[in-house]
Amino acid sequence: MAGLITLTTDYGTRDAFTASIKGVILKVNPQAQFVDISHEIAPQDIWEAAFTLRSAHSYFPKGTIHLAVVDPGVGGGRRPIIVVTESYYFVGPDNGLFSLVYQDAERIRVHHITSTHYFQPSPGPTFHGRDIFAPVVGWLSKGIPSGNFGEEITDYMKLNVPIPKKTQNGIDGHVVHIDRFGNVITNITFKEVRALLPEGEGTVAVTVTVGTKEIKGLKRFYAEATPGEAGAIINSSGFLELFVYKQNARAALSVKRGDAVRLMLPAR
Amino acid sequence: MAGLITLTTDYGTRDAFTASIKGVILKVNPQAQFVDISHEIAPQDIWEAAFTLRSAHSYFPKGTIHLAVVDPGVGGGRRPIIVVTESYYFVGPDNGLFSLVYQDAERIRVHHITSTHYFQPSPGPTFHGRDIFAPVVGWLSKGIPSGNFGEEITDYMKLNVPIPKKTQNGIDGHVVHIDRFGNVITNITFKEVRALLPEGEGTVAVTVTVGTKEIKGLKRFYAEATPGEAGAIINSSGFLELFVYKQNARAALSVKRGDAVRLMLPAR
Amino acid sequence: MAGLITLTTDYGTRDAFTASIKGVILKVNPQAQFVDISHEIAPQDIWEAAFTLRSAHSYFPKGTIHLAVVDPGVGGGRRPIIVVTESYYFVGPDNGLFSLVYQDAERIRVHHITSTHYFQPSPGPTFHGRDIFAPVVGWLSKGIPSGNFGEEITDYMKLNVPIPKKTQNGIDGHVVHIDRFGNVITNITFKEVRALLPEGEGTVAVTVTVGTKEIKGLKRFYAEATPGEAGAIINSSGFLELFVYKQNARAALSVKRGDAVRLMLPAR
Repeated sequence: MAGLITLTTDYGTRDAFTASIKGVILKVNPQAQFVDISHEIAPQDIWEAAFTLRSAHSYFPKGTIHLAVVDPGVGGGRRPIIVVTESYYFVGPDNGLFSLVYQDAERIRVHHITSTHYFQPSPGPTFHGRDIFAPVVGWLSKGIPSGNFGEEITDYMKLNVPIPKKTQNGIDGHVVHIDRFGNVITNITFKEVRALLPEGEGTVAVTVTVGTKEIKGLKRFYAEATPGEAGAIINSSGFLELFVYKQNARAALSVKRGDAVRLMLPAR
Repeated sequence: MAGLITLTTDYGTRDAFTASIKGVILKVNPQAQFVDISHEIAPQDIWEAAFTLRSAHSYFPKGTIHLAVVDPGVGGGRRPIIVVTESYYFVGPDNGLFSLVYQDAERIRVHHITSTHYFQPSPGPTFHGRDIFAPVVGWLSKGIPSGNFGEEITDYMKLNVPIPKKTQNGIDGHVVHIDRFGNVITNITFKEVRALLPEGEGTVAVTVTVGTKEIKGLKRFYAEATPGEAGAIINSSGFLELFVYKQNARAALSVKRGDAVRLMLPAR
Repeated sequence: MAGLITLTTDYGTRDAFTASIKGVILKVNPQAQFVDISHEIAPQDIWEAAFTLRSAHSYFPKGTIHLAVVDPGVGGGRRPIIVVTESYYFVGPDNGLFSLVYQDAERIRVHHITSTHYFQPSPGPTFHGRDIFAPVVGWLSKGIPSGNFGEEITDYMKLNVPIPKKTQNGIDGHVVHIDRFGNVITNITFKEVRALLPEGEGTVAVTVTVGTKEIKGLKRFYAEATPGEAGAIINSSGFLELFVYKQNARAALSVKRGDAVRLMLPAR
């Protein structure tokens, strides 16, 4: 899959931003193939982009180039970078966008992009996605080694990623994302829940609390709940998720990103 | 066009759901080509997906694989299926999503997908689009025969599709879709309207009623109405459609899906 | 890049309109490759489509076919056309959609599409995107010469494009677009601003007025402003743009398309 490129941006789909980027890449590499991950990241929401990128990037073939541009600092001092892992390339601004890649990857090499001869002529100050990142991605997809774009750096920026805390008989975590269905994704993992439970014990006794709402037990699939019932489930990415069957849990539970979520075993 | 795959889902375009599906397919078949039909189906609205799929699927080259995932029962008992018609493959959950395909196709063969070795390893309970349907589509697009994925079944699920009723001097139908422009699509067909009219008679005398609103005659094209005027027309899919020229008919006529629409000839 | 086709429409992404167009093109030319410029043009907003097309079209490889369909007059008297410039083809209705192409291109040739044998059989009255423009684009992308589709015409339609006016010590322009971030794009160009300034003088002394709001000086990049501060900048397309750093300028400045924008030097 030489030439497979994904795009994650906050450019939206109404303006021509994304198309300009694809055009520039195709001028460099007519063999390029695109898959849009999302262009509906909330404007300048670096965390949401980091989360979205993590949800999808590992499902792509080895060698895929993941371009991500959520870039409030465009034109200023923030550095353009290429991140190289054991399987993928990531290209974008050095503002924390790749924090979860840094956390999950086995090997990481980060290059500060400084070779301006790969850029569009006289890049403007407001649209590095088109003028800097797109041509770099184009040339990278043609096989130019990542080292040719600039020196390796080690002081790349990382977001402060919230980590769940083990409590006496439970785990304290947070809402990290709410999806299009209104399902509420937390940062509490299946592994952490499993470790908490006594050998052989199921998840029936577990209580999940968010705001003033308490949910008893974990469901195995959505339809195990009745329509309108709130449930908790380990989702297909391995994270604890809260839902309201056939409804929007964000609205029904009045939850927002960042809210505390507590998972508890009964005291014994 | 081996490897042409369309996608119809309610996953939206903000989250990474659709991209993960495409990534999984590309890992299996790097030659896959995608066309998005819609990812903006209202959450869990099986009828809207069925209608949308019908509007587009027959315009694609023979051999195209149409993947459709609107799946409130994911992870529970509903079956994953492959539908084979004289021209296309359809892959998705057996929940009525393909009802209009069953109605329109000349030949139908439906397979219950049970060959788990084609699935992603340990599929999660909430995202069969990625873990089951995507790899199946990938292998199907590589030429694996549909029979290899599971046994043929005949008790596949069908939605109760509303059928227009002939009345003494007219047809009673329903609003089945409202499009992005607010145009109101009914299930009354050109053929039914034509059959109603005396030999050689035009459509001037026809009256269309929706709610308390009456529309006289059929237009031949939108611009035949004046801006703000409500009109009725046989649209390019052969269905009776209500519109308000240069406005949104949904809002202007206060119409919603399911509303009754009556087409009448004057009593004689 | 034979077979590269971009699409700019007001069809939205919820309905199957765009997919039907792509299907029809792929039936004619299985090698076709698509890049969506935008399908979120406001319904029937010809100017927005013209502006969006201008922002992106020149970034594509030579030979790209740009299909644009915003078509309130569909089915009526307006003509389907092919525009040929030194680098690209444009296909769509003759309603002013290509006005900025006419303005920017060095050479223009416009053909009225009349060769109905390239159309879908019995085109409907409401969806020429699918029934006329799509097959024409398909055949054009297969190498059929533009002249084969119909006679050259010279009376093609042009929108009245607003032109900035030089005043005694400034420029009077207009808001021509507001992007997804709420950034306010004007029709005042870098060249015009530059011409106004005395030799060697920077842009610090400039004042930009929109409504009752005054902005002093031009920024070099967004982050030069403090969060919540309104700024003016020459953007990456070479136009004067108003923004509010990390906020939505449309809302913060209560600006809408068509509003007057005045750039002034201090009286001397």
